[in-house]
Amino acid sequence: MSDTVKFLLPEDRVPRHWYNIAADLPEPLAPVLHPGTGQPIGPDDLAPLFPMALIGQEVSAEREIEIPEPVRDVYRMWRPSPLHRARRLEAALDTPARIYYKYEGVSPAGSHKPNTSVAQAFYNAEEGTKRLSTETGAGQWGSALAMAGSLFGLEVDVYMVKVSFEQKPYRRALMETFGARCVASPSEETESGRQILAQDPQSTGSLGIAISEAVEVAAQNDDTKYSLGSVLNHVLIHQSVIGLEALEQMEMAGDYPDIAIGCAGGGSNFAGCVFPFLGRKLRGGEDIRVIATEPAACPTLTRGTYAYDFGDTAHLTPLVKMFTLGSTFVPSGIHAGGLRYHGMAPMVSHLLDLGLIEAAAFQQLDCFAAGVQFARTEGIVPAPESTHAVKAAVDEALKCKEEGVGRAILLNLSGHGHFDMQAYTDYFAGTLVDEAYDEATLTKAMDGLPGVAAE
Amino acid sequence: MSDTVKFLLPEDRVPRHWYNIAADLPEPLAPVLHPGTGQPIGPDDLAPLFPMALIGQEVSAEREIEIPEPVRDVYRMWRPSPLHRARRLEAALDTPARIYYKYEGVSPAGSHKPNTSVAQAFYNAEEGTKRLSTETGAGQWGSALAMAGSLFGLEVDVYMVKVSFEQKPYRRALMETFGARCVASPSEETESGRQILAQDPQSTGSLGIAISEAVEVAAQNDDTKYSLGSVLNHVLIHQSVIGLEALEQMEMAGDYPDIAIGCAGGGSNFAGCVFPFLGRKLRGGEDIRVIATEPAACPTLTRGTYAYDFGDTAHLTPLVKMFTLGSTFVPSGIHAGGLRYHGMAPMVSHLLDLGLIEAAAFQQLDCFAAGVQFARTEGIVPAPESTHAVKAAVDEALKCKEEGVGRAILLNLSGHGHFDMQAYTDYFAGTLVDEAYDEATLTKAMDGLPGVAAE
Repeated sequence: MSDTVKFLLPEDRVPRHWYNIAADLPEPLAPVLHPGTGQPIGPDDLAPLFPMALIGQEVSAEREIEIPEPVRDVYRMWRPSPLHRARRLEAALDTPARIYYKYEGVSPAGSHKPNTSVAQAFYNAEEGTKRLSTETGAGQWGSALAMAGSLFGLEVDVYMVKVSFEQKPYRRALMETFGARCVASPSEETESGRQILAQDPQSTGSLGIAISEAVEVAAQNDDTKYSLGSVLNHVLIHQSVIGLEALEQMEMAGDYPDIAIGCAGGGSNFAGCVFPFLGRKLRGGEDIRVIATEPAACPTLTRGTYAYDFGDTAHLTPLVKMFTLGSTFVPSGIHAGGLRYHGMAPMVSHLLDLGLIEAAAFQQLDCFAAGVQFARTEGIVPAPESTHAVKAAVDEALKCKEEGVGRAILLNLSGHGHFDMQAYTDYFAGTLVDEAYDEATLTKAMDGLPGVAAE
Repeated sequence: MSDTVKFLLPEDRVPRHWYNIAADLPEPLAPVLHPGTGQPIGPDDLAPLFPMALIGQEVSAEREIEIPEPVRDVYRMWRPSPLHRARRLEAALDTPARIYYKYEGVSPAGSHKPNTSVAQAFYNAEEGTKRLSTETGAGQWGSALAMAGSLFGLEVDVYMVKVSFEQKPYRRALMETFGARCVASPSEETESGRQILAQDPQSTGSLGIAISEAVEVAAQNDDTKYSLGSVLNHVLIHQSVIGLEALEQMEMAGDYPDIAIGCAGGGSNFAGCVFPFLGRKLRGGEDIRVIATEPAACPTLTRGTYAYDFGDTAHLTPLVKMFTLGSTFVPSGIHAGGLRYHGMAPMVSHLLDLGLIEAAAFQQLDCFAAGVQFARTEGIVPAPESTHAVKAAVDEALKCKEEGVGRAILLNLSGHGHFDMQAYTDYFAGTLVDEAYDEATLTKAMDGLPGVAAE
């Protein structure tokens, strides 16, 4: 094997099709239910919120979905993203493992999120949408949609959880630099926001409230659609460019992963990287262990229930079957903001339920320690979310050393930590703490699950 | 011409030699003088501060200097950096110009600085240095040296101007993540620092003071050397990888720049990008216009004097002949921190004096406007320094439109703005102001020049 550390594809190798794992499932996904009727929802129910092209992808069973040329044209600005061999990390760990990382931090927003924001902006622009509304927590998704909106001439309104709006002015500045309007949520602009503020004028907001505001704006304005950055099938499909490129780059490396790892909040970067590999296995190809990693402070896959639940706290969304901690579960304020979601993509949940993937939870101090080791060897400061994938890869590499076996490990480094340096500051200052939950706390949040009650 | 937007070279195309423009000069550079004797200094005078390999490069007249394999090996982590065709910016400007940008923001520290920090760390480690001391203003150089130190096993002490230390905790966190020790300057650790604090306990520091502290530590400790991030010949030589790659990438694009542009603070990113092109011209090759851009608030090249001056405010450094505003000149607090230096690399100064390059000064509001337009079309938020190159490129592209001529313009995008979002926040809030200086103010600072007095 060469000592190459960076596998680059030319821009004409940006994939021409997305991959849809629905085509390769041994059992189909459970249907999405209408919260009022309990019946499966149809395209018309979603039409006020999403353009028809995305609704079509949401329910598609086609294995390959063509990537429109204007989307590929934007992808080419930073894609194909590099695949790196982590030779310096391997040396520091003194492991026989071969560690590879696909690096999505090269995108304009610094994470994998533009892979779907660009596609969503394109389809919306094509169907005449003038404005996109969305929510954002830490701001990673909001800045990705802001960037995509600027390229396709769409206005973008981002409802940003107020506490983040105030604590993360630089993410907000990034959204405004890309031309988006950023509103602290709860706001006076929507009925949902005004109701919350009437009850609690000091509310610092939540992702659930911000979703309600963004959905309300889209539902009430014909020229406005709603945009979601994870969880949904069409989002996972768009993210498959990560794994499709990685397949080709692993071939350049003359290697194939024994283990593929991604961190999972809503599940989209994880799915984007691993599904193309998992699909090969499901079609009779190479075996592979697939591991989804999550914070011990929000252990959706490792300690949640597989049941129907709402996607938001205000219960405005359809009911989806997923691993969930209950929509009333409020995780502690860990720095991996993108991993603080009570649920999980239905497709990822389904695959875990079928035993086709594994899940592992990690404490944030261990994750930051792995992130710092990664920065000092590989030169890249990982986003707090991505450190959860790094930690799992380090553990697997050390296991290889113990066992004297040289496995190939692929991890998705979903983003850089440039906008999250406060987390590293706190880590070095010793003010970060680990947090986990006892059974009683977890059980309580899951008690009220509508799906559990209905069964 | 193809519609390619991104010209990538494989990692085996990382240059094997740096380029040294000293070999192609029509007239040699003026000697560096000892501040005490007024005589040219020799290698022995510099030995307490720098390893011999770098002192050798500082005075070398060889055209090609071999890049050691361990340095190339680190470069491969992010180099060759991409060359982009700015097709979306061109479309927005409706210009017949072809705009290319070399993007150095892909490095681990987000700027061109690691091109030299890695080389400096290598030579120091090879000659037995245990610790590097340096100064940093906004933190770009400090984080680049911190990263390089972590890869070559060197301790790094960064004296960071106190006002930045307090206002830019995230840059400091980045240095600490890479394992460096970051000290607010003036500090109690050095005689220079203690003297300043005795006079003014509330001192918020300056680059001049921080340089004095870092130099003092190196001079007084056998195991410690000093490291500088710009101005010196060996730094400019290391940065030549930018232009050497760009030459090859322009050939891939089937094009050649009519105009090459870089922003100039100390001069290193500018020189790194344009010198390989300028060298071709000096050896009888293609003609090219070369423009160094600077802030109107610190107009070293456009309104300074070409004379002998000190590199620091405390007058501890040798005397170098350069364009200077006088070492007592204090520029206003513009956001392009890397461009707030009273002097300029002697090599860049010499070329301007010979009429081989041009210089242009811009107001910061115009630069941020160009930076925002760049972000909204090309997806990359430029560092405040780099917006000065973007602004000049936009102006030249609009001139092409007026004249109906389609010139090729190459600009060096020296870094991204992720750690400078406060600048964009202020820009959108309308709190940024332009600033320039009247002749009287500038003349006063240049009155006391030692070189002027000696002539």
